[in-house]
Amino acid sequence: MLKHILFDIDDTLFPSTEFSNLARKNAINAIIAMGTNADFDRINKELSKIIKKRGSNYPYHFNDLCKSLKIKSPSKYVAAAIAAYHDSKTAIAPYPKVPLTLLALKEKGLKIYAATNGNPTKQWDKLIRLRIALYFDDVFVSEEIGAQKGPSFYRKILNTLNAKPTECLMVGDREDFDIKPAKALGMHTVRILTGKYSDSRNKSSGADFTIKDIGEIPKIVKQL
Amino acid sequence: MLKHILFDIDDTLFPSTEFSNLARKNAINAIIAMGTNADFDRINKELSKIIKKRGSNYPYHFNDLCKSLKIKSPSKYVAAAIAAYHDSKTAIAPYPKVPLTLLALKEKGLKIYAATNGNPTKQWDKLIRLRIALYFDDVFVSEEIGAQKGPSFYRKILNTLNAKPTECLMVGDREDFDIKPAKALGMHTVRILTGKYSDSRNKSSGADFTIKDIGEIPKIVKQL
Repeated sequence: MLKHILFDIDDTLFPSTEFSNLARKNAINAIIAMGTNADFDRINKELSKIIKKRGSNYPYHFNDLCKSLKIKSPSKYVAAAIAAYHDSKTAIAPYPKVPLTLLALKEKGLKIYAATNGNPTKQWDKLIRLRIALYFDDVFVSEEIGAQKGPSFYRKILNTLNAKPTECLMVGDREDFDIKPAKALGMHTVRILTGKYSDSRNKSSGADFTIKDIGEIPKIVKQL
Repeated sequence: MLKHILFDIDDTLFPSTEFSNLARKNAINAIIAMGTNADFDRINKELSKIIKKRGSNYPYHFNDLCKSLKIKSPSKYVAAAIAAYHDSKTAIAPYPKVPLTLLALKEKGLKIYAATNGNPTKQWDKLIRLRIALYFDDVFVSEEIGAQKGPSFYRKILNTLNAKPTECLMVGDREDFDIKPAKALGMHTVRILTGKYSDSRNKSSGADFTIKDIGEIPKIVKQL
C-alpha cells in the first residue's frame, strides 16, 4: 500500500529555471542601474564564467564579478545585485495545481517528502517561499544525506522511513536523478514533463507514469 | 562655502530601530509558524542573549537560536526565520521628506555622502532599498575607513574629499557619533531628533542646529 510520496523540488514544484534566469537578469540590471559602463551582455558573460567556475552555491559571485569588471568600489554594486536577486526570490510561485494536490494527498493520509539535491536551508527556503512548507513531513537533501540523488540516496530514505520501496512514489522531472535510481530500487515513479528537461527526453522515460500536470497525481495514487 | 553634506543612515534617513524590531518579530513568528513548541517570549529572550553575545552582524543568530531551543532538525526553522527577516527588509521606507530633500540638495549642486558605522555592503543595501542610493556621491563606512565614527573617521573623510571642515555639514541623530566629533573638527552640524535617541538628550545637543524633520535642511543650508 502506498504510504509515502517523494517530490523533487526544482522544476517539479515550481519553474526554478525560469525564476533563476529572472533573478539573474534582475541582478545584472540592478548593477547597470547603479552606474557601471559595462553592458548587459558583457556582464552576463562574465557572470556565466564565474558561475561555471565556482558553482551556483558559491556566495561571492557578485564580488568576483565586480573584480572581473574592474569596478573599484564594489560595495554598492554587490549590494544592488544581491538585493535584486533576493527580491526576485520573494516572487517565486508554485506550478498552479501544486498546493491543492499536496492538500488532497495529505487528506488521504499520505506522508509527503521532498527529495532534492543541494543545501538544506536553501531547499527549505524554497518550500517556505512557495507557501507549501507545512505540507512536507520531512525534506531529504543530498548535503545532509551525504550523497547526490542516486541509489544510495534513495536507499537511505527507505531506511529512515522504515518503508518498503513499493510503499513509496517518487515524482520528478529528471530521468537521471529522479526516475532511474528510484525505479531501480523498486519504488513507483512519476516523470513530470516540466522545466528544461521536458522537451527532448519525453519518449525515453522509464517511469511508470509520465504526466504534464502535477494535478494528475491523485488519480495515479488511486491506481497504486 | 558649503559643498558637502554628510548624512548618518540609521534613524536619520529611515526608522531603522522600528524596522529591525519588526524584522525580528517577523522572524520569531515565522519560527513559531513552522511548528516549534517554544513561545514568543522564550524565543525572543534566547535571541536577545545570542545577539548580545555575538553582535548584530553575526551571520548565524538563527542557527544558534535553534541550538539553544534544542530543535533537532533546524534547517526549516532557520530558513523560515531568514526569509521573514529578509522580507521585512524589502519593506523599509525612508522618513517621508528624505527623497525630496536629497533631490533639492543635489539641484543646488551639493555633494551628498553617507557617513555610517558598519559594513559597506549592508549600508549600501539600505540606501538601495530606500530607493535613494543614486543621490549619494559616496558612502563612508567605518569598516572600510578602519575607525568607528570619531575624530579620525571624519578627518579621513576630509582628506578624501580634499575639503575644509567649514565646507562640510554633518547630519545625524547621535550626539556621540555624529555631532561631537564632526563639530570638534570644525564641521557644521545638524542634530535630528528621530529614532531612539530623540527623547532623553534633546536639550544637551552641541549641534549648530537641532531639527525634528529632515525637510528643514535646505533652509539651514541657505544660512550657511
